Amino acid sequence: MSKPLPLLTAPAPERRDAARNREALLRAAAELIEGCDVRAVTMEAVAAKAGVGKGTVFRRFGSREGLMAALLNHSETAWQASVLSGPPPLGPGAPPMERLIAFGESRMRTHLQQGALIEAAGRTWGDNYAVIGFATMHLRYLLRELGVSGDLTYLATALLAPLSLPVLQQQLGFDGMSEERVLAGWQDLVDRIVGS
Amino acid sequence: MSKPLPLLTAPAPERRDAARNREALLRAAAELIEGCDVRAVTMEAVAAKAGVGKGTVFRRFGSREGLMAALLNHSETAWQASVLSGPPPLGPGAPPMERLIAFGESRMRTHLQQGALIEAAGRTWGDNYAVIGFATMHLRYLLRELGVSGDLTYLATALLAPLSLPVLQQQLGFDGMSEERVLAGWQDLVDRIVGS
Repeated sequence: MSKPLPLLTAPAPERRDAARNREALLRAAAELIEGCDVRAVTMEAVAAKAGVGKGTVFRRFGSREGLMAALLNHSETAWQASVLSGPPPLGPGAPPMERLIAFGESRMRTHLQQGALIEAAGRTWGDNYAVIGFATMHLRYLLRELGVSGDLTYLATALLAPLSLPVLQQQLGFDGMSEERVLAGWQDLVDRIVGS
Repeated sequence: MSKPLPLLTAPAPERRDAARNREALLRAAAELIEGCDVRAVTMEAVAAKAGVGKGTVFRRFGSREGLMAALLNHSETAWQASVLSGPPPLGPGAPPMERLIAFGESRMRTHLQQGALIEAAGRTWGDNYAVIGFATMHLRYLLRELGVSGDLTYLATALLAPLSLPVLQQQLGFDGMSEERVLAGWQDLVDRIVGS
């Protein structure tokens, strides 16, 4: 890919011990979340596991929502890296249609996996346009590579919209679809948009 | 339309004076919102305008979010009625493609108009599947009328997803699109899905 995509804003430089604290807290939170329900993970438990005071957690992340948003930023950065430079078909090297399908599947699985975390982060995370901006630009790039004409930015947002957590929850919950059916539906949507 | 669509759940029967109170409060809230910023409309102001005590507002709606959600339910019911039995092209009588385009435009304008109210209602409203369910079934009906084959429920959710408030806010704000461009993009999406 020749054009740089907007990555998540790099955090402001921090003192080395502060950065170490931050890493330790994020790691502690991630480990706690793996073991139990996100809703049961308290700031106290995260502080205790990281070996710091509770005040430190609040100073670093502002609130429980802020901590959850920081965790999501962390895994989003890793996901963006795998899109930009990871192995194909999600990363470069595969034909654009294969990359597009891999993108949809990976986005759906990531959102479903992180569902409870996304809800715990609330608006702090939902308004994060750096995340949507990256995905939109990547989809626009793939649509252009596929020779699609039209308003590629709009089409990219339209392909991204049904992969958002609230829509996935509606499809899997309210509409009773399986994950396979949702994926097949998204691929059919891609075919109709690309015109293949 | 031959098949009944799921309308918003009718409220449990209430005593006549309670119903009168409820109507008065909703009317008072709607009038206050028309005059100023939704965020500035307090429960006290709504109670004062309706001539009841503040406790009554909380008893009826539980919270400020609950009141806002009730207001949205109220206008959603009116909107559903205009889709089901209002004048064409949104209502019955126009060809299905014209109804589909009118649906998209009406949904977009309604969501943008109610933006602040939808945000004030928060999750109370966001999880209201009766609203999404109605719109999904109506879109599925129109796609079937247009002779589209495939997973019509999935395609209906995919057509609906980019008309949600968060996606509209991203398109108009972050991506800097005009309302006309968003509408043209949605119509192009419809054409690609219908295959015309």
